[in-house]
Amino acid sequence: MRRKRIYEGKAKVLFEGPEPGTLVQYFKDDATAFNNQKKGTITGKGVLNNRISEYLMMRLESIGVPTHFVRRLNMREQLVREVEIIPLEVVVRNVAAGSLSKRLGIEEGTALPRSIVEYYLKNDALGDPLVTEEHITCFNWAGPQDLDEMMQMALRVNDFLTGLFLGVGIKLVDFKLEFGRLWEEDQMRIVLADEISPDSCRLWDIKTNEKLDKDRFRRDLGKVEEAYQEIARRLGVLPEAGPLDMQGPKVMQ
Amino acid sequence: MRRKRIYEGKAKVLFEGPEPGTLVQYFKDDATAFNNQKKGTITGKGVLNNRISEYLMMRLESIGVPTHFVRRLNMREQLVREVEIIPLEVVVRNVAAGSLSKRLGIEEGTALPRSIVEYYLKNDALGDPLVTEEHITCFNWAGPQDLDEMMQMALRVNDFLTGLFLGVGIKLVDFKLEFGRLWEEDQMRIVLADEISPDSCRLWDIKTNEKLDKDRFRRDLGKVEEAYQEIARRLGVLPEAGPLDMQGPKVMQ
Repeated sequence: MRRKRIYEGKAKVLFEGPEPGTLVQYFKDDATAFNNQKKGTITGKGVLNNRISEYLMMRLESIGVPTHFVRRLNMREQLVREVEIIPLEVVVRNVAAGSLSKRLGIEEGTALPRSIVEYYLKNDALGDPLVTEEHITCFNWAGPQDLDEMMQMALRVNDFLTGLFLGVGIKLVDFKLEFGRLWEEDQMRIVLADEISPDSCRLWDIKTNEKLDKDRFRRDLGKVEEAYQEIARRLGVLPEAGPLDMQGPKVMQ
Repeated sequence: MRRKRIYEGKAKVLFEGPEPGTLVQYFKDDATAFNNQKKGTITGKGVLNNRISEYLMMRLESIGVPTHFVRRLNMREQLVREVEIIPLEVVVRNVAAGSLSKRLGIEEGTALPRSIVEYYLKNDALGDPLVTEEHITCFNWAGPQDLDEMMQMALRVNDFLTGLFLGVGIKLVDFKLEFGRLWEEDQMRIVLADEISPDSCRLWDIKTNEKLDKDRFRRDLGKVEEAYQEIARRLGVLPEAGPLDMQGPKVMQ
């Protein structure tokens, strides 16, 4: 049976879901970096990110952060609610790294005096530029109240995930969230969407500062698959899967 | 008599002033663009910007916007109060142009739905990166109250200058302000500093959209000197100067 493909991104595919207002989110092993200039595959990443994101979204729901997540369907797929994605990447930073270090000349690894929330416009052609609240509200990518809600949620997510990762010996350096608008009986709510995984977080071992995230791919540090597995293992969600399952099926249509 | 040179920038030199807490601001003809990659001279620019900035700062003082300006001393120099410069360029935009158009993919000349205030970190080595209020307050480049004061002042300056330039047939597309901290009897005030001139504003003829500002230099459009003269003429501050005066003396020490 062919499913209708709604959207294909760099790391995921969205298919029409089993009932109206739902989508199936399929996790690929594809990895890209530097605005698509670098491309590759991280074997088993889709399986692991599906599990990790399921776990984190469920834990966030349990503290009252609304998400698009419904349930995991199989090794590489999860059922999510269809939302209208707000075209912003909301980044929370606790420690200087990546583009912040580069743009502002702050050495990677420097603890920030306080957590910072940044917004980037989701636009590949423009290279996802940093934008300010002034740009966002002027061009109506989101309203001031939406921004306020997203920032409050992002800070709650940061508090919770910082604690959760600390508990398993990991420093949450920074992460990227996406939000979507969900309509229910003419009421609009903003909910967390997309995924939370080593693709979207910087996660450093608390003792060794070893990077356990996509930076291993971006910077050719090796042991990329192992890093994703280590995160899943520490969170207690490593699937007991044979090598065949880990490689996963091709995307089915 | 040698004067003590306090600071030399790209377009101006600051000398020790005649009394404590004052500086002499000397306007050069030097022009730079694209973070110093392009360098040149605009003959007579220093003389004209000294006059234009004098006029605009005085008019702003008259509506209650505090500035560092005291009085013009001669063709190329003005007396200003010594302030501690806040390391931000505060940009107000009414029409898309320059880096906004490039970064956000908005065609130059598009009227913005509303005026936008942006902050750039004054740091040549980093290329004056765009920063958000989060960065500014996190790294204490300015406090939240300072930012609020600067934004309020920037919006007042925008309203006033938009009107003033409209009155002489010019569209105020965008401009850059700098602010400084001034201590008076243990009281700190934020005042407008630096200069306001065709070096720091985008000014388009209202009818023809002809650029009458530093973009003529940046983009090699020719008639650069004439554009600065035209702004001075329309504002009624064109000095009645012979060619020798226009070329001006070398900076004296």
